[in-house]
Amino acid sequence: MIDRLMAQIEQKQNPTVIGLDPTLEMIPKFITQEMLETYGKTAKAVGKMLLKFNQELLDQTADLVPAVKLQIAMYEQYGLDGIAAYLETISYAKEMGLLVIGDVKRGDIASTAAAYAAHIGGVAIDGVRIDPWKEDAVTLNPYMGFDGIKPFITPCKELDKGIFILVKTSNPSGGELQDLISDGKPVYEYAAELVSQWGELAMGEQGYSKVAAVVGATYKEQGESLREKMPHTFFLVPGYGAQGASAKDIGGYFDRHGKGCIINSSRGIIAAYQKDKRFEERHFAEAAREAVLLMKKDLGGVI
Amino acid sequence: MIDRLMAQIEQKQNPTVIGLDPTLEMIPKFITQEMLETYGKTAKAVGKMLLKFNQELLDQTADLVPAVKLQIAMYEQYGLDGIAAYLETISYAKEMGLLVIGDVKRGDIASTAAAYAAHIGGVAIDGVRIDPWKEDAVTLNPYMGFDGIKPFITPCKELDKGIFILVKTSNPSGGELQDLISDGKPVYEYAAELVSQWGELAMGEQGYSKVAAVVGATYKEQGESLREKMPHTFFLVPGYGAQGASAKDIGGYFDRHGKGCIINSSRGIIAAYQKDKRFEERHFAEAAREAVLLMKKDLGGVI
Repeated sequence: MIDRLMAQIEQKQNPTVIGLDPTLEMIPKFITQEMLETYGKTAKAVGKMLLKFNQELLDQTADLVPAVKLQIAMYEQYGLDGIAAYLETISYAKEMGLLVIGDVKRGDIASTAAAYAAHIGGVAIDGVRIDPWKEDAVTLNPYMGFDGIKPFITPCKELDKGIFILVKTSNPSGGELQDLISDGKPVYEYAAELVSQWGELAMGEQGYSKVAAVVGATYKEQGESLREKMPHTFFLVPGYGAQGASAKDIGGYFDRHGKGCIINSSRGIIAAYQKDKRFEERHFAEAAREAVLLMKKDLGGVI
Repeated sequence: MIDRLMAQIEQKQNPTVIGLDPTLEMIPKFITQEMLETYGKTAKAVGKMLLKFNQELLDQTADLVPAVKLQIAMYEQYGLDGIAAYLETISYAKEMGLLVIGDVKRGDIASTAAAYAAHIGGVAIDGVRIDPWKEDAVTLNPYMGFDGIKPFITPCKELDKGIFILVKTSNPSGGELQDLISDGKPVYEYAAELVSQWGELAMGEQGYSKVAAVVGATYKEQGESLREKMPHTFFLVPGYGAQGASAKDIGGYFDRHGKGCIINSSRGIIAAYQKDKRFEERHFAEAAREAVLLMKKDLGGVI
């Protein structure tokens, strides 16, 4: 996955991943009204809204970006209908040639992690393999250690999938545990070391492992320091745009060849029409395209 | 939720929670065969197996236990059909008067956690509230700090729901980050302190907070020490039985009144028929009942 991701970044000259994390407030009224009229005030109506919103966004942006990231919580909150929209969006994005990162942040004991690994590895039913989720990669939580990671290594190797493990997160309270100092080093650096070690189990072909890391964009020095300490670990970097970071903050997250990093933006792209008054609501997807082009330009100096 | 849980434990004189975490290998062949014949080798067939297995188990054990815990990964791995079985099992258990803990271990930034909080708080669609998940409580991961917890506090208070936050997990690699020593204390003790603090925001009426903790059964001294340090925090304790712990290991997880703790057993109960040769496969649910009675007896000395 990591080699395919790097190839797509190279081809499209863009390390931007679009975060398809819509809230109802971001979806234009002409879509919400249509679905509420057709399906009533139901989860099904919301599922249809989410899918239509995503499809139009993908139609306008798929040629510009290597990958999309779906925050599953935005779908999961609506139950089965929400998850159906998550799955249909994944299929739609993959048909357009995009790589799909499922932002699921799972993490558990070994037997449970083996079940969660179905997200990227599928599952066998009486000898027949099915693939209910189809993500190319997922995000994982390291709090329970390697037990929660190991079952994902096999699909990384055998099916060329990927995982992105939380190291340093971009949210305000991320430091409560991650920044505790043990023997002169913060906890997140231990997480970084573990991720590096685990990464040796599933190396890609261009120097980066299929076991990658999530490193928030809002802590410039820490990001740069982690880049040095983790030369074979690809970074997924949330926090660009709406969360406050810009290209000057994240240049150091890339290696000296301008590789090793993919930058997520969600609200700043998918809800761009709400800020960019040149676009009417009906042209929300074109506003998103414009936002992607701006972000590509902003990041152009670093890759 | 925590007061309702304590009342149920008192009434049934049993602090056992049954972990409804079935794998296909645990489901009797007469069920798997029936569903494969009816639905083919499909996720739908597995969903039906999971549900039927759970329903028979609940029919035989609901009068004996206060609550069930569903490990969502065992369902999620089969996609929509698996999650449908998860949701139907929850409804079935609640109709029987049981409290339901969704073992989902979610944890994320604030806006995402607000979406995940739908598990216990439901969600609004154009002013109409729906409740797609219906768990009474869920498990959460503390790695991202309070941002990932805060949105769950409101449903704890307003809807009398509960959360169980990972503090010290029972799996072998749980110590890789949790046991790092910072300023003389392991990371999991910092997690414990945070959980205690957060707990003050949603106290129940019997001295325990609706913000509870997950503390593995396999680390006796640590569990006892956490009990002392967290006098107002209820513990959910996995690791009994199949994972190796017994009543003598967990006595110290209870307070001096024999309260403050619920003990999970999954495989040891739901797959008891595979070990207890007195029971034929067709009587798997009676074997589970027998296992619950044995566990109740084993724990009787500590409550």
